[in-house]
Amino acid sequence: MTQLLKVQNLMLSRDGYAAGEGQSLERPFGHADPGAMASWAGATASWPNRTDPGGSRGLDDYFTRDFTHNIGAEIMGRNKFGPQRGPWENLDWQGWWGDEPPFHTPVFVLTHHHRPDLTLGETTFYFVEGKPAEVLEQAKVAAQGRDVRLGGGATSICEFLDADLVDTLHVAVVPLELGRGVRLWESPDELLDRYHLEVVPSPSGVTHHIFWRR
Amino acid sequence: MTQLLKVQNLMLSRDGYAAGEGQSLERPFGHADPGAMASWAGATASWPNRTDPGGSRGLDDYFTRDFTHNIGAEIMGRNKFGPQRGPWENLDWQGWWGDEPPFHTPVFVLTHHHRPDLTLGETTFYFVEGKPAEVLEQAKVAAQGRDVRLGGGATSICEFLDADLVDTLHVAVVPLELGRGVRLWESPDELLDRYHLEVVPSPSGVTHHIFWRR
Repeated sequence: MTQLLKVQNLMLSRDGYAAGEGQSLERPFGHADPGAMASWAGATASWPNRTDPGGSRGLDDYFTRDFTHNIGAEIMGRNKFGPQRGPWENLDWQGWWGDEPPFHTPVFVLTHHHRPDLTLGETTFYFVEGKPAEVLEQAKVAAQGRDVRLGGGATSICEFLDADLVDTLHVAVVPLELGRGVRLWESPDELLDRYHLEVVPSPSGVTHHIFWRR
Repeated sequence: MTQLLKVQNLMLSRDGYAAGEGQSLERPFGHADPGAMASWAGATASWPNRTDPGGSRGLDDYFTRDFTHNIGAEIMGRNKFGPQRGPWENLDWQGWWGDEPPFHTPVFVLTHHHRPDLTLGETTFYFVEGKPAEVLEQAKVAAQGRDVRLGGGATSICEFLDADLVDTLHVAVVPLELGRGVRLWESPDELLDRYHLEVVPSPSGVTHHIFWRR
């Protein structure tokens, strides 16, 4: 069984940005409003952070429900793990997700700076340095035959796309513009030489872009 | 956690039929061509009967991939299990699916005629009589906290809809007409008083109808 590297539920502005400018502890998405970017997902029954039993079970829910399907590990950029840059000054920061992060698998955090492993609930974060292909190899071993999620942000996804390592990519384009920030693409057409693309508008207002290798 | 009763990937003609007329061993869908009804699903990477590693990973694949998600048991009508009617004359017939049926859970087959349990691979078929609510109760216990799939055919689904027991319903409307056979509805509008509906056209030509309770 082939192990895939998958991007799932990446939220992008209509003009191609996954996060705004000026990321900080208070504003993890910079000048972008995380509520406006993620409201389509938060409205679904399967959104991992949901605390009440309601939620929609239409098209968007298929995407949030698929988040954990056959996933055995995640790779994420350091900027997704936290707002710090440079050497870890202390180990107080343990990510955005509290005592029980929603991953429930090994997570490989890309960083040039050493830090010991961190286990929170069912998730263990490993802080790793290396070329995309090397980190993917580590993650595939940890995933024990299951697929690997590439969790973002856009900078990390671009690195793995440039190395031609991404098998499938789901991007939810949100109907707002950011003007500046961390860019995934100028246009989805950039990927059409390597990927099939289906563009599926959702009643919620987002437009799902589903790519898979040719 | 609520346990849902879900209809998944029911394939329906544009005029509302899930199967044609004259079901038999040779023609399980009667005069309907099963290939034409199911070709959208068979083209996807996650189709359970797929034997080669290819297949599309676009919108339709989210639906075939979701087939087993959090499902702990299935309920099916006797006509889905096989073409026989009346008392079981012998036990030679073991379903359409060979030694390893794609369910991998307990399956409750609705019948008025006694038959001993049948285990094939990871699937055990139980042959049960009772009102829809009673059979659903049995299936929920067997599902051990997970959801229950209502596998069809259309006659069984109508019985559970009439008893108001179905929580979510996904119907893939195929672009062909059958004219006669086993009907699910005259129009999807019949369910709008009780369900939300999203209608999502797929590039493959089928139109996904996704219902969930209001």
